[in-house]
Amino acid sequence: MSKKVAVIRREHFNAAHRLYNQQWTDEKNAATFGKCSLPHYHGHNYELEIKVVGEVDPVTGFVMDLKLLSDLVSEKVLERFDHKNLNIDTEEFKTLNPTAENIAIVIHDLLRPHIDASLGLYIRLFETPRNFVEYPA
Amino acid sequence: MSKKVAVIRREHFNAAHRLYNQQWTDEKNAATFGKCSLPHYHGHNYELEIKVVGEVDPVTGFVMDLKLLSDLVSEKVLERFDHKNLNIDTEEFKTLNPTAENIAIVIHDLLRPHIDASLGLYIRLFETPRNFVEYPA
Amino acid sequence: MSKKVAVIRREHFNAAHRLYNQQWTDEKNAATFGKCSLPHYHGHNYELEIKVVGEVDPVTGFVMDLKLLSDLVSEKVLERFDHKNLNIDTEEFKTLNPTAENIAIVIHDLLRPHIDASLGLYIRLFETPRNFVEYPA
Amino acid sequence: MSKKVAVIRREHFNAAHRLYNQQWTDEKNAATFGKCSLPHYHGHNYELEIKVVGEVDPVTGFVMDLKLLSDLVSEKVLERFDHKNLNIDTEEFKTLNPTAENIAIVIHDLLRPHIDASLGLYIRLFETPRNFVEYPA
Amino acid sequence: MSKKVAVIRREHFNAAHRLYNQQWTDEKNAATFGKCSLPHYHGHNYELEIKVVGEVDPVTGFVMDLKLLSDLVSEKVLERFDHKNLNIDTEEFKTLNPTAENIAIVIHDLLRPHIDASLGLYIRLFETPRNFVEYPA
Amino acid sequence: MSKKVAVIRREHFNAAHRLYNQQWTDEKNAATFGKCSLPHYHGHNYELEIKVVGEVDPVTGFVMDLKLLSDLVSEKVLERFDHKNLNIDTEEFKTLNPTAENIAIVIHDLLRPHIDASLGLYIRLFETPRNFVEYPA
Repeated sequence: MSKKVAVIRREHFNAAHRLYNQQWTDEKNAATFGKCSLPHYHGHNYELEIKVVGEVDPVTGFVMDLKLLSDLVSEKVLERFDHKNLNIDTEEFKTLNPTAENIAIVIHDLLRPHIDASLGLYIRLFETPRNFVEYPA
Repeated sequence: MSKKVAVIRREHFNAAHRLYNQQWTDEKNAATFGKCSLPHYHGHNYELEIKVVGEVDPVTGFVMDLKLLSDLVSEKVLERFDHKNLNIDTEEFKTLNPTAENIAIVIHDLLRPHIDASLGLYIRLFETPRNFVEYPA
Repeated sequence: MSKKVAVIRREHFNAAHRLYNQQWTDEKNAATFGKCSLPHYHGHNYELEIKVVGEVDPVTGFVMDLKLLSDLVSEKVLERFDHKNLNIDTEEFKTLNPTAENIAIVIHDLLRPHIDASLGLYIRLFETPRNFVEYPA
Repeated sequence: MSKKVAVIRREHFNAAHRLYNQQWTDEKNAATFGKCSLPHYHGHNYELEIKVVGEVDPVTGFVMDLKLLSDLVSEKVLERFDHKNLNIDTEEFKTLNPTAENIAIVIHDLLRPHIDASLGLYIRLFETPRNFVEYPA
Repeated sequence: MSKKVAVIRREHFNAAHRLYNQQWTDEKNAATFGKCSLPHYHGHNYELEIKVVGEVDPVTGFVMDLKLLSDLVSEKVLERFDHKNLNIDTEEFKTLNPTAENIAIVIHDLLRPHIDASLGLYIRLFETPRNFVEYPA
Repeated sequence: MSKKVAVIRREHFNAAHRLYNQQWTDEKNAATFGKCSLPHYHGHNYELEIKVVGEVDPVTGFVMDLKLLSDLVSEKVLERFDHKNLNIDTEEFKTLNPTAENIAIVIHDLLRPHIDASLGLYIRLFETPRNFVEYPA
């Protein structure tokens, strides 16, 4: 019988953002997003958990080498977002509102092609210690 | 294709309680619940996570505004339980034993009518950093 | 030259309390202490750090064996306060208001006679993760 | 309607290990596992979460008494692994590579016979605060 | 004999910043501050601890009411910096480089006039969980 | 007036050790150090805080660049101890008992020559989340 195990690696990055719907007036953005929409940005220490689910390789005892997963996340995610302004400096959020929900989906989609298709992939993203999201739920 | 995302807000409250089954003698309560049943109460810093699951609104980028969720939890849960004696001061636990399991179910049922029916609702409650519960599991 | 090192042990206990000055009316207590003075108590997961400072014994490499310190704290502090109502169940806080400041001083004074006089003793007490005290400062 | 609740207890143990496949040469082990395979072992503060899922007993308000669960984990897991060298001192990892994945599976299988068959059992094991696993996933 | 106790309140705010010395060329800023000087800002979840040291008032059992301290920090610090761009939106960092060291000094100096002169005041500021500062040291 | 600020960097390493005084019999070691002296080693996730105290450079706004401090700690401490067996693999603990106290002193003395003499240097070492030491105290 196969035994599914999840392995999780935690990484972090620091970025600036503001919540902003480009289709809306500034007034409607302020009314909807409050101080999260202030014009000159604020920022977060994002804590990122990447979970990979699959069977344990009987030879290595690994689902996936977490060192390789960490290197992959550095290359595909951290180099792109760390110490950046998500709204200005990234292609992904030039028009997409950088809510935690959307950031998690984008990170998932950046990593998905590089993880073996037999493995499940799940993202948890902490915007603050008290506000976080999971995708897919 | 719809994309389900979970958003989680963490809150906290401080309360006193004792474990006690009113149908039992004091001796049986002490034998079953040990020092958790001592007559003059003890207390906890409860940490409460409220998870809401649904599709991301393409206009806001939110599953649910966590500020609104936080306000809702303050109104429906924290004002009711924070700095209270659960056994004495609350209607919910006048006869129901305030175990972490029961507190989580009660909190779920207090919030459920106020969260859109299309959204999933899940509660995690930490009684201590080493003892916690999740409902529904 | 002697080398002073601090060794710290972290313990925890759960207790109920209310802030209350017995010389005052209920109204004045409520005005001063707010919901911390509600009559039926609330409670906390107290996290307690005990720091002992001294020279390293060249034979053991210890300032003080933290296992012995942990046992001492269990005997002198935790058995006295864990799962208790500080206002009702303890001699120490029958008349003394159980603020975090006073609890830290009481814990210090309970332990001081049992720690070698050549060693410094310092208490840090977390009432919540965001409110804590240190004695002596 | 039955209400499934999960109760979780967090425990910890300290152990030494090295990653090593006995079928391989030392060179292949070093190439695969890097510094995790260094010959004289390294170690971790393992944090262990045991989740038990079931219906709440209406008499006690418990899914399972976490004190009994903690005692069971101490007897079956902590006494076996705490302050041990997993590769040398344990039967379980004499030939099985002590990756976090394999340790989680072994802990699950040690506990499973002692938890009521009507209850679900899930293990989360932190090897470090940034590397952890879950079984079954 | 007087007994000095420290009381500490932990608060948090989210802000954007970049490290930048206005006297320098962009090249020198980049060479000195690396990615912390990227032009479009990044950000942090700042965790802020405010320590007040003094004697315990024998009537209240408080060094200082932490509720009042929390309100003061909200009014003087959080309203000024939370969800702001420190370089653009604040008077304090229009010319002063917003390093953690300088932010801690500025926060101290904003609060000092509002804390009784008999009390000591100390600031600890976490820029990330792994980088933090204390002032005065 | 000069303003002293402390800057702190947190790092971590994983290592195996056992407590052992080579002058003693195995029996005396076991009687003194208990399971910490078991012959085949155990291990820890050591968390290491390095605090540097000095005046803020008015040009950079830094006491010391934490990136440089982190690089220095990696080179002088982490490369030496990470994923090692302290008793076997290191010169420093071949005869010196690797208690947390002694490890902190050794780390201090490894770093001290490489930190400007005008700056204070302080080490905090967590052996577990509940046992830690500080040097100099």
